Amino acid sequence: MASETELLPPSGFFRGAEHLFPVRVYYEDTDLSGIVYHANHLRFMERARSDMLRVAGIDQRGALEQGLGHYAVADIHIRYRAPARLDDALVVRSRLTGLGAARCVIHQAVMRDDDIVADAEVTVAFVDTETGRPRRQPAPWLATFQHLLSEPLTHP
Amino acid sequence: MASETELLPPSGFFRGAEHLFPVRVYYEDTDLSGIVYHANHLRFMERARSDMLRVAGIDQRGALEQGLGHYAVADIHIRYRAPARLDDALVVRSRLTGLGAARCVIHQAVMRDDDIVADAEVTVAFVDTETGRPRRQPAPWLATFQHLLSEPLTHP
Amino acid sequence: MASETELLPPSGFFRGAEHLFPVRVYYEDTDLSGIVYHANHLRFMERARSDMLRVAGIDQRGALEQGLGHYAVADIHIRYRAPARLDDALVVRSRLTGLGAARCVIHQAVMRDDDIVADAEVTVAFVDTETGRPRRQPAPWLATFQHLLSEPLTHP
Amino acid sequence: MASETELLPPSGFFRGAEHLFPVRVYYEDTDLSGIVYHANHLRFMERARSDMLRVAGIDQRGALEQGLGHYAVADIHIRYRAPARLDDALVVRSRLTGLGAARCVIHQAVMRDDDIVADAEVTVAFVDTETGRPRRQPAPWLATFQHLLSEPLTHP
Repeated sequence: MASETELLPPSGFFRGAEHLFPVRVYYEDTDLSGIVYHANHLRFMERARSDMLRVAGIDQRGALEQGLGHYAVADIHIRYRAPARLDDALVVRSRLTGLGAARCVIHQAVMRDDDIVADAEVTVAFVDTETGRPRRQPAPWLATFQHLLSEPLTHP
Repeated sequence: MASETELLPPSGFFRGAEHLFPVRVYYEDTDLSGIVYHANHLRFMERARSDMLRVAGIDQRGALEQGLGHYAVADIHIRYRAPARLDDALVVRSRLTGLGAARCVIHQAVMRDDDIVADAEVTVAFVDTETGRPRRQPAPWLATFQHLLSEPLTHP
Repeated sequence: MASETELLPPSGFFRGAEHLFPVRVYYEDTDLSGIVYHANHLRFMERARSDMLRVAGIDQRGALEQGLGHYAVADIHIRYRAPARLDDALVVRSRLTGLGAARCVIHQAVMRDDDIVADAEVTVAFVDTETGRPRRQPAPWLATFQHLLSEPLTHP
Repeated sequence: MASETELLPPSGFFRGAEHLFPVRVYYEDTDLSGIVYHANHLRFMERARSDMLRVAGIDQRGALEQGLGHYAVADIHIRYRAPARLDDALVVRSRLTGLGAARCVIHQAVMRDDDIVADAEVTVAFVDTETGRPRRQPAPWLATFQHLLSEPLTHP
C-alpha cells in the first residue's frame, strides 16, 4: 500500500550547491510542431526556482501574504539547444551565480540525460508587492543564498 | 547523496482502481485573484490521465508516433468547489467509470487533503490522428481498462 | 498611415443580446496532436466573457481593485465537437441564459464559420475577494444583465 | 449592424518596417502577484511574430503542412521593465534586425502607451520539421525579409 509521503508532490533537492528538479513533459507543454513550446521552458525553470526556495527553507507564499514582497523576473537570456517531447523525463539544474541586496542571478539548464535542452541566465529582483520597487531580501534569505554561493559544485 | 531514481519526475500510482497523482501549485497556475486559474485544473487532470495511462503500461507517445491514434477530449463537466493557492500540495484522484470501444469516461477530483477543490466527469475519445474520427482502442488497452472497471474501490 | 484606433486590441460586440468575439489560433494554443489543446478553449471563452463585461460597461478590474469582488467560475459543461487549427479565425458567441443575485449562467460557443468547434454552459459566481464567499452582484450590473436576458436573439 | 469584417480576429500592421500588434491582458495572463506572468510576454511576442508573417504574406501553416519546415526559437534575451495588468491595452512593436539563410533576428518591445513593459531580441531558426535541422528559408520569404531590413524606420 502506498504511504502518505508518496502523495506529496515531487520535490527537487540540492547536490552540493546545485539544485536538481525533475519535470515530465505533458500534452499541455507541446505545440503543433510536436515539441515543447518555447515559452514553457520558462515555466519549468520557474517551478525549479520556486522549489529551490522551498527546499532551502524559504517560504515565498508566507512572505507574499505578510506583505514582505515577492520575486519578479528582471532579465532572462535563454538558448534553445534541443527539442523536448511528450513524456520526456527532464531535469532542471539550477545554481545561484550572483547575489545582490535585492536580486539573485541563477543559471538554469533543462536537461534530458546528458543533453542540454535549454539553458538560461535568470535575474530575479525582490520587490515590494504594493509598489513593485526593489527591496532588500530578508536577512535570513540572504544568509542562505550566501551559503549557496560559496558552496563548491559537486560533480555527480 | 541523491540516488538516480530521485531524478525521475513524479509519478502517480493506483490504490485499487483509483489512480492518485500529486500536483504542486506554482506561480504559473495562479491568476490575479490569488488562486488557481480555472482552466488550469483541466491541465492538472490531463496530467493525471496521462500518468494513469503510463502507470497502466500504455504508451501514448508510441501509439501517436506509430499512427495508431490518440485521445481527444470529447466532453467535460467540471465543478469548482474550493480555491487552491500557491504552494498547495494537491492530489488528483481519477477513476475509470465508463468504457466503450472508442471512448473512456473518467471521474476526476482535485483534492487538498480531504477537501474537493474541483471534480469532473471527463469523456475522452480515441481518434485517428489523420482524420480525427473515433476508432477502436487497441485491444490490450481495452483489456487493461476492463480490469480497472471491475476493480473494487479500496478506501484508504 | 494607421490611425491610433487600429492600435487598440480587438474587441467583440453585441448583436442583439448575443456577444461576438473573434479569436485567432496561435502556436501557444495548439498541442502535438496539431489542434487546439482542450483547456485552451476555456481561455478563449474567458476572454470573451471579460470582453462582454467591458463592452457592457462593467469594469471588472476597477471592482477588484476597490475590493467589491470578482467573478469565479463555479461550473462548466463543455463539449468538443470539431478541431481548431493554427491560424484559424474563430468567433466566440456568448449569451446570458440565467441570472441570480450572485451568479450568471452563460452559453458560449466557439465557432469557425458555421461549425461549432466547442460549446459550453458556464456558471460564474460573484465572490468576495477576501473570503471567496458569494455576494450580490452590484445593482447596475444586475440591471445590465436583466436587460441582456430580455433582449431577443437577433439572427444575423 | 456589425459588418462581417468586424468578426475577423485582430490583426497587426506595418508602419514602415515596424510591425505593430495590439494585445489585451486577460485573467489567464496574470499571476497572483497581480501582474502579467513573465513567460506570457513570450506568448504575446510569438503572436506578434506570427501576425507579422501573415501580414507580410507568408503562410506558416501552409509551409508546415507541406513539409517545408517551420520556425523554432533559438535564443531570446528579454528584459522586464514595468508590470502589465488586467485589461491593459498593450502593443507589441517588432522589427527585423538581422537575417541569415536559415535565421531571423527580431527586436520586439511590449509597450503600454510610451512605456516599455518588456523588450527582447529573439532569434528564430527555420528548421526541417522531420529532423529539426536548420534549412534555408524559402526564397520569396527571404526577399520579403530583405525588403523589411532595408526599409527605414518611420517614427509615428
